[in-house]
Amino acid sequence: MRAAVVGTGLIGGSVGLALRERAGAHVVGVGPEADAAVQRGACDEAAPTVADALRDAELCVVATPLGVLPKVCVEALAAAPKDCVVTDVGSAKQVVADAVHGDPRFVGGHPLAGAEAGGVAHARADLFDGAVWYLVPSPRTEGLLFERLHRTLVALGAQPAAIDADVHDRLMAVISHLPHVVANVLVAQATRALDEDGESLPATGPSFRDATRVAGANPAIWPDILLANRDAVTVALDEAIERLAAARDALLDDDHAAVEAAQHAALHERRALLEVGLEGGVRTELRVAVPNRPGVVAELALALGRAGVNISDMTLSPSADHRHGTVALWVDEADAARAREVVAPIGPVSEP
Amino acid sequence: MRAAVVGTGLIGGSVGLALRERAGAHVVGVGPEADAAVQRGACDEAAPTVADALRDAELCVVATPLGVLPKVCVEALAAAPKDCVVTDVGSAKQVVADAVHGDPRFVGGHPLAGAEAGGVAHARADLFDGAVWYLVPSPRTEGLLFERLHRTLVALGAQPAAIDADVHDRLMAVISHLPHVVANVLVAQATRALDEDGESLPATGPSFRDATRVAGANPAIWPDILLANRDAVTVALDEAIERLAAARDALLDDDHAAVEAAQHAALHERRALLEVGLEGGVRTELRVAVPNRPGVVAELALALGRAGVNISDMTLSPSADHRHGTVALWVDEADAARAREVVAPIGPVSEP
Repeated sequence: MRAAVVGTGLIGGSVGLALRERAGAHVVGVGPEADAAVQRGACDEAAPTVADALRDAELCVVATPLGVLPKVCVEALAAAPKDCVVTDVGSAKQVVADAVHGDPRFVGGHPLAGAEAGGVAHARADLFDGAVWYLVPSPRTEGLLFERLHRTLVALGAQPAAIDADVHDRLMAVISHLPHVVANVLVAQATRALDEDGESLPATGPSFRDATRVAGANPAIWPDILLANRDAVTVALDEAIERLAAARDALLDDDHAAVEAAQHAALHERRALLEVGLEGGVRTELRVAVPNRPGVVAELALALGRAGVNISDMTLSPSADHRHGTVALWVDEADAARAREVVAPIGPVSEP
Repeated sequence: MRAAVVGTGLIGGSVGLALRERAGAHVVGVGPEADAAVQRGACDEAAPTVADALRDAELCVVATPLGVLPKVCVEALAAAPKDCVVTDVGSAKQVVADAVHGDPRFVGGHPLAGAEAGGVAHARADLFDGAVWYLVPSPRTEGLLFERLHRTLVALGAQPAAIDADVHDRLMAVISHLPHVVANVLVAQATRALDEDGESLPATGPSFRDATRVAGANPAIWPDILLANRDAVTVALDEAIERLAAARDALLDDDHAAVEAAQHAALHERRALLEVGLEGGVRTELRVAVPNRPGVVAELALALGRAGVNISDMTLSPSADHRHGTVALWVDEADAARAREVVAPIGPVSEP
């Protein structure tokens, strides 16, 4: 198969590597990093223009930044052969669907895979292993072309999942884009409050750090993501504002029952969301208090590894002086008793 | 020294253990868990009433739930000898200061120490090691009594820091209470959106899980915390609503410059906040892609431990199928190059 990759950064480069290694494709890259992608082994050759890259292509992946993505998809379709499937990897899908006007060769796409470090230098053939890869066909998409793309993504190690553009965008708005905006707001607000009072942030443990981990995420790409999905993000922001106002009103009314109900609901909802989102069923959180010295996390993880307990999720929260810390571990419920036993000699264990 | 601990759960019990082990105090406990606290070694004896516990006490720590805390502080002061310092451990300070009317024997207090698992069974003498312990004296607090309390907290391993009640409450509102309410809102909103569209949460990596880690935090204590600090929390909620509305308006106006400026500001602010909040200067984040099998985190942590690199913070984010994951590690900037070298053989390293 002859494939074109338009835009060969982290994602495009990883697609190229995986197409070559796992789908036996001949990959032609185009874009500012195309020569570097050839050096990296992510492409067989670099083409000077999109039209050159698309010549005789059976599959084309557009992986440019979101700001220019819809335009480039249109350009790729104009150059693509009649039986070439064209897809993209943008994290907003309606804006792309609107641009391509139901071209039967187009299927929108969005792999949920790490984009935290940009550039073809970080590209990896296994980037999509096990990752959900959303596909957004239009009612006019040709079945054979959709099937070809689907099969190729499976070969790349991904889990393709079809979804409507508007559903995708609403989903991303609430589980990713809104949390990013909220994190920005939290750090802005904390900064102002601390400045005003001449205080510094006490090391209170994980809650503020976790809540703001994505604040200021890659400023080279996030503004485009938020703007590309602005319809769904502004709706999500309006809903968040309403919910925060309801929380404020419950506090102003001293409405203990309402505040307590919200807390219980959130506990239940978070569990339900995360149990659904993670394969393998219910996970249990254990918290272990440990001295904060080199090696202690290893000791902990090694003891669990030896006992065959897999750690699904782990957070280490240092104390103010960095001499102690709390390690939160998520393990399969079935492994929890064993994990407790194994971990107990290293530090006191509690369950939140 | 004879000390009274009113309310002997996790915090009161830990205070009792530390007072006995580290300050050589004779500790009298009172409250529903007082007998269990004696069993646990957290108290020398259990008293039937607050007045009995306070007899001849030189120091009294009130550690009841926040809902009844102000009332119990008043009760303790009524029973306390003339030269007994009385303090509390509540996470809202104005409401307590208002209740005690500037009694010269009273100093408000708030240790920033893990309260995630309740009950005297989880009490530990070292719970406060290195923890900031806010102290809120009134203008009428007696110097000798303040000094006694300060000295005792240092003996307990804590770092006492004096602060005004209103500053404390504003600070806690923005760095702890608001993030808790926001996390509740995010899970409520995601739950509604997913239900509506019949979708489930894709395992998108850490952003949603981190942002909502404190959603539904201990419903037995959080409603009281939010209500006890409702003046500052409602102000913080109003400010958050304003800032979210500004973010929405920038998106609606398609104002790329404003969206980009907010993203850059948040990046800068988060770094400044966390560099201030953690001792030992600037930290660098490394991301390592690893297969998600028992032992791999150990291997990673052990390799770093052997190289003398301390891990300040660590998050493991599984992929959708739990076969792979990304480990985010925070290490001292000075150790970053060594850490990269050590970690590289285990999995590809990137910097966000």
